[in-house]
Amino acid sequence: MKTINRGSGITAPETTSPPSVAVWQHRHILDLNDFTKEEIELVFEIADAMSEILTREVKKVPTLRGNTVVTLFYEPSTRTRASFELAAKNLSADTVSLDASKSSVVKGESLIDSLRTIQALGADIIVMRHSQSGAPYLAIQHVNCSIINAGDGWHAHPSQALLDLYTMRRHLGKLANLKVAIIGDIMHSRVARSNIWGMTTMGAKVVLCAPSTLLPRGFNDFIANCQLPNVLIENKIEPALEDADVVMPLRLQIERQQSGLLPSLREYIQLYQLTTERLSLAKPHVLVMHPGPINEGIEISTEVAHGTQSVIEEQVANGVAIRMALLYLIAGGRNK
Amino acid sequence: MKTINRGSGITAPETTSPPSVAVWQHRHILDLNDFTKEEIELVFEIADAMSEILTREVKKVPTLRGNTVVTLFYEPSTRTRASFELAAKNLSADTVSLDASKSSVVKGESLIDSLRTIQALGADIIVMRHSQSGAPYLAIQHVNCSIINAGDGWHAHPSQALLDLYTMRRHLGKLANLKVAIIGDIMHSRVARSNIWGMTTMGAKVVLCAPSTLLPRGFNDFIANCQLPNVLIENKIEPALEDADVVMPLRLQIERQQSGLLPSLREYIQLYQLTTERLSLAKPHVLVMHPGPINEGIEISTEVAHGTQSVIEEQVANGVAIRMALLYLIAGGRNK
Amino acid sequence: MKTINRGSGITAPETTSPPSVAVWQHRHILDLNDFTKEEIELVFEIADAMSEILTREVKKVPTLRGNTVVTLFYEPSTRTRASFELAAKNLSADTVSLDASKSSVVKGESLIDSLRTIQALGADIIVMRHSQSGAPYLAIQHVNCSIINAGDGWHAHPSQALLDLYTMRRHLGKLANLKVAIIGDIMHSRVARSNIWGMTTMGAKVVLCAPSTLLPRGFNDFIANCQLPNVLIENKIEPALEDADVVMPLRLQIERQQSGLLPSLREYIQLYQLTTERLSLAKPHVLVMHPGPINEGIEISTEVAHGTQSVIEEQVANGVAIRMALLYLIAGGRNK
Repeated sequence: MKTINRGSGITAPETTSPPSVAVWQHRHILDLNDFTKEEIELVFEIADAMSEILTREVKKVPTLRGNTVVTLFYEPSTRTRASFELAAKNLSADTVSLDASKSSVVKGESLIDSLRTIQALGADIIVMRHSQSGAPYLAIQHVNCSIINAGDGWHAHPSQALLDLYTMRRHLGKLANLKVAIIGDIMHSRVARSNIWGMTTMGAKVVLCAPSTLLPRGFNDFIANCQLPNVLIENKIEPALEDADVVMPLRLQIERQQSGLLPSLREYIQLYQLTTERLSLAKPHVLVMHPGPINEGIEISTEVAHGTQSVIEEQVANGVAIRMALLYLIAGGRNK
Repeated sequence: MKTINRGSGITAPETTSPPSVAVWQHRHILDLNDFTKEEIELVFEIADAMSEILTREVKKVPTLRGNTVVTLFYEPSTRTRASFELAAKNLSADTVSLDASKSSVVKGESLIDSLRTIQALGADIIVMRHSQSGAPYLAIQHVNCSIINAGDGWHAHPSQALLDLYTMRRHLGKLANLKVAIIGDIMHSRVARSNIWGMTTMGAKVVLCAPSTLLPRGFNDFIANCQLPNVLIENKIEPALEDADVVMPLRLQIERQQSGLLPSLREYIQLYQLTTERLSLAKPHVLVMHPGPINEGIEISTEVAHGTQSVIEEQVANGVAIRMALLYLIAGGRNK
Repeated sequence: MKTINRGSGITAPETTSPPSVAVWQHRHILDLNDFTKEEIELVFEIADAMSEILTREVKKVPTLRGNTVVTLFYEPSTRTRASFELAAKNLSADTVSLDASKSSVVKGESLIDSLRTIQALGADIIVMRHSQSGAPYLAIQHVNCSIINAGDGWHAHPSQALLDLYTMRRHLGKLANLKVAIIGDIMHSRVARSNIWGMTTMGAKVVLCAPSTLLPRGFNDFIANCQLPNVLIENKIEPALEDADVVMPLRLQIERQQSGLLPSLREYIQLYQLTTERLSLAKPHVLVMHPGPINEGIEISTEVAHGTQSVIEEQVANGVAIRMALLYLIAGGRNK
């Protein structure tokens, strides 16, 4: 356990008073369902300071010097892993990247034994992705170091949701009362699930739009049980898009068709692709977002993906700032 | 060839006088058969200082800044490679990791040509693992940079043996006259071979216990020829465990059964698995060690693996300190 | 865009005045066909300074601290990638290595989208290798960060050509009027193509020697059209070698035989292998160079590959210095 010099190299933007880290309660980042509005706003304020660092000539601060961040990915990924790695390096942490889909850490060894070994090697923070929903919840019961969930099955991907919210706030100034349309393969999307928690906590309205085969069974009941009145389900894209502030089409895995969840890819494109024409139903300032990588010409047209409303690349850049903020807060939070 | 500021950032524990590095003679770490008792004790003293660094808030010292450590692994490994990488990073060395099982360094290129290329790229120390016994001995004849053997065939794995010895010494205060039982697949174990050298040098008694199919042919003759009176062979586990101070079951590769060396996995478990009941034959303070990764339920029961006598995770942590000590000594030793 | 403190840690060799970087015009390194003699000489002078750094006790300078260099390789490589990585680390840049042959960056994502994502993650310089000739030229139209071509199809490999030229200059003092024989699979060699541009710019004479099946069709016309009077084609090795100052056999991919371009490997060896006997046709001070990895016993005999004329390992070492120089110049050049 160690203390982090919160001041070193990081200054809050001049227009705001320094954020109070007293509200921060997390030693781990598992999902957004246990984040308060104040905690999410704290992440944003720290991310603002991190974004400023990223514009500097030398985009590196010594905050996490001598800390070790290990990425342990049981599913292949480049985008998210590289984002966490760069975030850690920008804070001067040492990083080790373990590709557990190929690694001998895994062979004949349980997840828990692997995590304990990585902790014993000196990891302060483990960033993990696993195909099993709930894996990081198991993890925190067996290791003392901090766990950041970088995606567990269909369940959660909290850093992605935070960067989505942050990108929305930077462009639209606020999150309360925004209408956000999430379109496509809701069933298999951990991004959608984490965003539902984050967006409703921040007061946004979420419209989930998908053919019924790509919606989780009983999702209506779930929404009712969790008392999420700001979450609606639409099967047609047009009402979902109407007056939307943000539209987020999800990546459609081509394999869904083979597994019988999609009658026809052509039909999906015809009914659900985000096109320029359909986008005109949304508000004029609408933001087009996507968790990436894009399947151009499937869930989104090339024109929209690279159009003036698209903030997809900005999401990637904001992701580094958000992950720097999370590493910073978690590293400090480990003392509590 | 360069000099290392031995003092920078490293202080010996207050209770001991600074170790004399004058006894150190090695430019390479190949095996423990040419290590004196004094050299092994020096490694331990430096490792004590390294362990202290690992408890600091900023667990990083500038000792090897500007040095390049390349890991060249011809067999897949995560545990050992990550351990060396983290050890190097903790000392501020730059690291490059070459996975030679997939790498084009290897394609159509001899081991020697690859090593020469890596040296020409600027490596100061090459940490290598190779499936051929003796490969590092070939290596040192063709390159000037230091070689650390991270495992060569069935032959040797000296850093693992040193961390085993170090863990024993930290718990039991001394190594002389300890009874150490190594159980299982002795034939294919480079860990066992390096430990035999290290343990007998330090005055411990080693009992090797395995079914005769998993003992090297003629091992009795070898022990006699090498004048190792402190090494005994037992085919039954009970006498091996009796009054043992340390028990070290080895990983049993399931493939051994397919290759005819094991009549039946079930029989092996019945006769050789380290269970709580069997462990009660050993001394009350007995340490349970394992080079990892564990095959739980095969060579060791789940209960014993995670029981109060187990120091398996501590071995992993000590491994980083031992490898920091070896890198430090070798980097200094390169001047001689 | 950022400024680089050109002075920090780098001093020009005492015998020369500091090189004027005013001549430098490149934000990217794509090929040598647009390099002037002055620019190539500037690279050499910076590389001299870098070579001096590589001899220091601490071979690391803070020049590119806080810069991020991403290597994006769509073809497997260890040698070139490790060379760029070490060059970047020696300059204190952060590096991230993306193996695009396996990476999810690539899946269902166009090269351009991947490059934009990497830029958004914070890359200042992308070092890329791609199997398609011209890929880096496409890249610079879509991203703002600097691109270094580490090999594109059969087209170009400029950093390799620069290290070849640098090695020649270090040994022979000058490049003008040298006779350089490049022997073997010219057709598939991006190294040969970049060397033709660099060598003729520096006033050397190039003799390309290959069986006609391994020469690009219409290459004679190309040479005529490009007004390259100093480039000659020879089908026989003996006149190519006669009085040569430098001989560079190219790696012969064994697969060429299967694809019908080689009637017989044995015949190729008989007619084109660089042997001690053949080498005696060249000048007494002849340098034997090879871009690596060597196919010993095919395009070059073991004796010649490791003989006294061979500077093959020196090429590798010079490659790190050349790549440090390119990263340094490019990082500064990004301000223009």
